[in-house]
Amino acid sequence: MQLSEIGETGLLAELERRGLVLGIENDAAELAGGLVVTQDALVEGVHFRLDWTSWRDLGYKAAAVNLSDLAASGAQPEALLVTLAVPGATLLADVVQLYEGLSEPGVPIRGGDVASAPRATLSVTAVGRSKRVPGRSGARPGDALVVTGPLGGSAAGYLALAEAIATPLRDAHRRPPLRLREGQLLASTAHALMDLSDGLVSDAERIAARSGCKLVIELERVPIVDGVKEVAERVGRDVWDLVCGFGEDYELLAAVGDAPFPTIGWCEAGAGVELRLQGEHHEVSRWRHFGDA
Amino acid sequence: MQLSEIGETGLLAELERRGLVLGIENDAAELAGGLVVTQDALVEGVHFRLDWTSWRDLGYKAAAVNLSDLAASGAQPEALLVTLAVPGATLLADVVQLYEGLSEPGVPIRGGDVASAPRATLSVTAVGRSKRVPGRSGARPGDALVVTGPLGGSAAGYLALAEAIATPLRDAHRRPPLRLREGQLLASTAHALMDLSDGLVSDAERIAARSGCKLVIELERVPIVDGVKEVAERVGRDVWDLVCGFGEDYELLAAVGDAPFPTIGWCEAGAGVELRLQGEHHEVSRWRHFGDA
Repeated sequence: MQLSEIGETGLLAELERRGLVLGIENDAAELAGGLVVTQDALVEGVHFRLDWTSWRDLGYKAAAVNLSDLAASGAQPEALLVTLAVPGATLLADVVQLYEGLSEPGVPIRGGDVASAPRATLSVTAVGRSKRVPGRSGARPGDALVVTGPLGGSAAGYLALAEAIATPLRDAHRRPPLRLREGQLLASTAHALMDLSDGLVSDAERIAARSGCKLVIELERVPIVDGVKEVAERVGRDVWDLVCGFGEDYELLAAVGDAPFPTIGWCEAGAGVELRLQGEHHEVSRWRHFGDA
Repeated sequence: MQLSEIGETGLLAELERRGLVLGIENDAAELAGGLVVTQDALVEGVHFRLDWTSWRDLGYKAAAVNLSDLAASGAQPEALLVTLAVPGATLLADVVQLYEGLSEPGVPIRGGDVASAPRATLSVTAVGRSKRVPGRSGARPGDALVVTGPLGGSAAGYLALAEAIATPLRDAHRRPPLRLREGQLLASTAHALMDLSDGLVSDAERIAARSGCKLVIELERVPIVDGVKEVAERVGRDVWDLVCGFGEDYELLAAVGDAPFPTIGWCEAGAGVELRLQGEHHEVSRWRHFGDA
């Protein structure tokens, strides 16, 4: 069986079933002493294109993506480790820009490595400490679902870059938000908490599966980044595909008793995720990992 | 200026000079509470070839390389995080073998991610705790230099694979040693401690530069893996190139007051590294990162 047949989630589930990895589906590993560690890799041609992003923006995004996992754990970041693999012909000035972008969120880069590789690959580890990591398994019927900000900007920015549409949303794809403070606030009370990296539907499904309940989302309550509707119209896609099916929003999704952020739905008895629009069931298309590799 | 002109060490020095990274030359980042974190990436075609290694050996090596950095910090490992990027056509059975290899040293895999990529890339973060991290800057005149085991096996194994020479040394390249216990023992008293990943000469130069002293190594005292001389003869290279200039030995090198392991030289006033063979100055050739990219 090939990975493209089972997808990213299927692979992780299989590795977990065999006892080869523990809790790999979580945003970050929680170790003794409140320590939280997360790691991600960005590969040229898969996660970024050097003709679409500056080196500085790439660095910023690589840091932000990992810090988002710490935010989803309610953690205060302490350090980044960065391993960069690039062709030997890469310019020093570009690499300096990359590290300036990585440094922008203000978390010190305390280690890592450099190596040569035919395509640029950037691996970032973020380390922080958290008083409480809600995880994904505690959502319960009656909880409100909240998000920390508007969605769809990254999808619209990606499409704008792909279709050469001029819009400031390109930056929404290149420079995701940092929700560290919101994460710490939510972590103190939330029953479940995660960051939206794979799209609202896919990520909500993870909470539903781990918590053993059903998540209902009313689409008209989901905040949308300004300009996303216009891009969806330009490319002839349902706006909800962009808002719920793309990912890389890096806002936080939480199941809470009391809602300190905009409520987009609720948890109830059952399984899976249901999207409703004006009271009717609504389907969205999703982007998939491994699907196009 | 291109990275191939300044090399890995030059790039790291430049990033450090600009304040963009802190202590990136160390084997691992040392954080509050004795926490030690290290990260490395292995890229197909650069660090490994899938026709030379099994997926299981690749996993073992990826774990061992990072655990070696923890060993050089005197740390007890607590967890690994693994990010794997591979083509979608990769077989699930191969990925399972990879994770079995990663699990072999007995340190739980507690997180990470999977993604698609045109070439296999494996990023591993290792987290541990140490009572004392000697670092590289404390060697002083009068110290003895010790190594925890024989060198040259990885270089000979690499050449055996490249030149199709049948020898059990191929495994020395594919399955480096784990020196965690030796690292903890040395860390309690050593003035400087690191692992031999880039070759005895390059690595000793790092201790010399950071400590502000000269390291003298008597080659006839350096332990050599059985069979390395024969491979060197077969390929027409000086055996000391293999023992001192290749790297990936993953033994530990320490500057100590009392020597619990074989002594190969000493520290004295001055700078740099001098190799001596039968009392005469000896030069070796080195492999370089970025040099052939």
